[in-house]
Amino acid sequence: MFMLPSTALTALGLIAGALTSFSFALQAWRSWRTKSVKDVSGGMYVVFSAGVLLWLTYGLLRHDVALIVWNALTLVLVALILMLKFRYQQRSAAK
Amino acid sequence: MFMLPSTALTALGLIAGALTSFSFALQAWRSWRTKSVKDVSGGMYVVFSAGVLLWLTYGLLRHDVALIVWNALTLVLVALILMLKFRYQQRSAAK
Repeated sequence: MFMLPSTALTALGLIAGALTSFSFALQAWRSWRTKSVKDVSGGMYVVFSAGVLLWLTYGLLRHDVALIVWNALTLVLVALILMLKFRYQQRSAAK
Repeated sequence: MFMLPSTALTALGLIAGALTSFSFALQAWRSWRTKSVKDVSGGMYVVFSAGVLLWLTYGLLRHDVALIVWNALTLVLVALILMLKFRYQQRSAAK
C-alpha cells in the first residue's frame, strides 16, 4: 500500500496540528476583542481540555512528536478561552 | 521506559477522542438551542475543519484507528457548527 516517507508524514502532522491549534487563537482573539462570550459553550471547552490532556498523554506514550507539540499548544490556547469565558461572563452577569 | 500494553494505549486514544469529539456536540447543541452564534468565531471553525481533515489523512497513513475514528466524527460535528453559524448569522443580519 501507499506509504509516505516518514519526514513527509511528520510534516503532514505538523501542518495539521498548526491548523487545529492556531484555530483556537482565532476564537481567543474574537472573545478578547468583543469581550462577549455568551454564545461560546463553556462546557465544550471544559470537556475539550480534558480530552486534549489525554491526547497529550497518548502522544507521549506513542512518542508522537506532532501529537505532543500541538496538544500542548492547544491546551494553552483553550485554557485562555476558558479564562476569557469565565471573566467576561462574570462581567455581564454583574451588569 | 514505561510502556502501556497496546490495548490500554488504544483505549486511552479512544477516551481522548471521545472527549474532544463530544465537546463539539455541546457547542452545536448550544448554538441550536439559543439560535445565537455571534460570539462563535467562524474563522476558527473554518481553519479547524481544514486541520481535522489533515489529521484524518495523517491517521489513515499511520493506520491509527483512534485518529481516524475521532477526526471523522469531529469533522461532522464541526461542519454542523459551521452550518448553524452561517444560518443564524444570516438571520440576525436580516433583522
